[in-house]
Amino acid sequence: MTKPIHPIYLDNAAATPLDQAVLEVMQPYLTTEYANPSALYQLGRNARSAIEDARQTIANSLAAKPTEIVFTSCATESNNLAIQGTLKAHPGSHWVTTAIEHDSVLALEQPLTASGHPVTIVPIGADGIVDAAVVAAAVTDTTVLVSVMLANNEIGTIQPLAEIAKQLVAIRADRTARGLDRPLYLHTDAAQAAAYINLHVNRLGVHLLTFNGSKLYGPKGAGVLYVRTGTMLDPLMFGGGQERGRRSGTENVATIVGLGSAVKLAVAHRSTEAKRLEQLRDQLAQQILKALPGTRLNGHARRRLPGNLNFSIPEIDGETLVLHLDQAGIQVSTGSACSIGNQLPSHVLTAIGCTADDARSSLRLTLGRHTLASDIAYVAQTLPAVVKAVRNLG
Amino acid sequence: MTKPIHPIYLDNAAATPLDQAVLEVMQPYLTTEYANPSALYQLGRNARSAIEDARQTIANSLAAKPTEIVFTSCATESNNLAIQGTLKAHPGSHWVTTAIEHDSVLALEQPLTASGHPVTIVPIGADGIVDAAVVAAAVTDTTVLVSVMLANNEIGTIQPLAEIAKQLVAIRADRTARGLDRPLYLHTDAAQAAAYINLHVNRLGVHLLTFNGSKLYGPKGAGVLYVRTGTMLDPLMFGGGQERGRRSGTENVATIVGLGSAVKLAVAHRSTEAKRLEQLRDQLAQQILKALPGTRLNGHARRRLPGNLNFSIPEIDGETLVLHLDQAGIQVSTGSACSIGNQLPSHVLTAIGCTADDARSSLRLTLGRHTLASDIAYVAQTLPAVVKAVRNLG
Repeated sequence: MTKPIHPIYLDNAAATPLDQAVLEVMQPYLTTEYANPSALYQLGRNARSAIEDARQTIANSLAAKPTEIVFTSCATESNNLAIQGTLKAHPGSHWVTTAIEHDSVLALEQPLTASGHPVTIVPIGADGIVDAAVVAAAVTDTTVLVSVMLANNEIGTIQPLAEIAKQLVAIRADRTARGLDRPLYLHTDAAQAAAYINLHVNRLGVHLLTFNGSKLYGPKGAGVLYVRTGTMLDPLMFGGGQERGRRSGTENVATIVGLGSAVKLAVAHRSTEAKRLEQLRDQLAQQILKALPGTRLNGHARRRLPGNLNFSIPEIDGETLVLHLDQAGIQVSTGSACSIGNQLPSHVLTAIGCTADDARSSLRLTLGRHTLASDIAYVAQTLPAVVKAVRNLG
Repeated sequence: MTKPIHPIYLDNAAATPLDQAVLEVMQPYLTTEYANPSALYQLGRNARSAIEDARQTIANSLAAKPTEIVFTSCATESNNLAIQGTLKAHPGSHWVTTAIEHDSVLALEQPLTASGHPVTIVPIGADGIVDAAVVAAAVTDTTVLVSVMLANNEIGTIQPLAEIAKQLVAIRADRTARGLDRPLYLHTDAAQAAAYINLHVNRLGVHLLTFNGSKLYGPKGAGVLYVRTGTMLDPLMFGGGQERGRRSGTENVATIVGLGSAVKLAVAHRSTEAKRLEQLRDQLAQQILKALPGTRLNGHARRRLPGNLNFSIPEIDGETLVLHLDQAGIQVSTGSACSIGNQLPSHVLTAIGCTADDARSSLRLTLGRHTLASDIAYVAQTLPAVVKAVRNLG
């Protein structure tokens, strides 16, 4: 097969292209509708009203109230606000998370421990799924927060949030029975899941939920933290009191409006798109596993995001392979693109039992809205050839 | 004079329109150049390189090093990072600021005091200028940070940063002589100043400097914190370690590139634009003061930003006036648009000795890049007429 005219982008877990329709909705707020949404004149009131419309759309997508939506600048900020915020509001409190969370969760271990908030990081199964009972067992009487991602950014595995929520209900009931009035919140980082999974907060049983635009064909710079009414959290940033005092700073109207539009599109196409991608993904997986003996699919085969594949391919260096695939017109990654200058093997892959060598030979392919069947056919044919060529170089 | 076809926007201190040329520079990063800048393939490396080009441009505008530039999401975040960051890195430390700072500085009084970082808020002269000696006198042996804005957002007064810096040099020398090794940093919020004032950091004598895109005809969602090499500060957000660990979160490439472009334009036109606006502003001030006896210009007459006017107009309610001016095609504000639901009189105006009544009768007009002489002529004629009409309603 000849190299495609346009590169084939299979790194949608790292960043999604901004949908053209979303950019069109944002356009007025990048040009003529520039007022500060706190301004009193009509142009300012229009901006305020555009923000509130987007807030309502987003609340609807979560089956939540508009007052429970906090706009932030990104998922990292939302995760930090959720975790730092609830813990700091409860001095001396403990939290529980898993070994495969995003860096913006796990990097909080050190600073929060130093400020009196120890964490228990629960292990993950070899299939990349956490056991709800193991999470529950880590909860102590000082625990205020449990943070478990909805879907993993590297291996795409989907965590049993509703089961975890059910376990926490029992723990809360027990606390109440014993006269202990410490809250026990459940947070989920749904950044990777938002494009594919129903995020109704009561279905998931969460008090806090993170997602953002850049994984949802929306704008970068647009994060959301859902905060259930009654959840106590301290702000990260103080100032003019925007977002009901939970996130100060003049609102970024264009990105908020864009996020609203992206959410609307995602919700409308979620289930058909999930089915389409699952089919393409399974087809690609079969062909790769057949053509490259010894290759292993990391993470649970079915309980994973529809667009996610993560392989360990024997006798290959993942980074070298990524560069050669780029030459062949295929854009993929070895794992997370969310951390900088990190030469260590993926903490996700080591957590599910990969050796350092297996982790270094990993390749992540994440399909998305623009992936076509013809792209998959090209990749299925090209990838094994490139792997063999790279092996011959070594 | 007939009402203008397009409203006359004199609220550039609240938000500046995005420059068309800046939006054009951003356009590829809103469409085809969407990769995560940490991705290894060419598209990712292009994004990384665009960020580093913008960083170099911005560093040049400050006569600083690229490694000293931290990209944030807004000026509120930059101020919070500068102040919370340096204080938390120095347990028990004290800080000094002034009574007319932005909300994102003054709102830190309560939470920082609660975490063991008391503040001294120095008073301001009736002309809206702080006395460098008064600032210096507030510094104690536990002070780690002095934060003084370069230009005020309501009354536009320009603070004597270099003089303050000089006083701090003497205090540092005295500390060294006494064997006290506690650092003493100077931070300035230059958000309002950036469009008009040279920000070379050695000229200002600062260790930390805040500015952002939304006051500079650049994009919203683009903040900068300059951090002088050797300055110790704790991050607000933890995660992937972007921005040399000082601000985690995937970089917002489009807004960073836009900010670089906006800075380039601002630096190129700064001095001619300042002169042009000063002339228009002084002309407008004269006409308004003449037409509305008893009206007072708040803040120093000359040591203020070229586009800023802030009046107290007797026998008028500022908010009512703003709404009637909007009907007449003039968009202005009573003061800061940066705080939400705040019905108190402006803390800036009360700090310079205005009564609550004077503060409630204030009107801020801030000229900008798109303000024409004909706009000023219309406002000079219309404003007094609207004031009289509103008084007659009362």
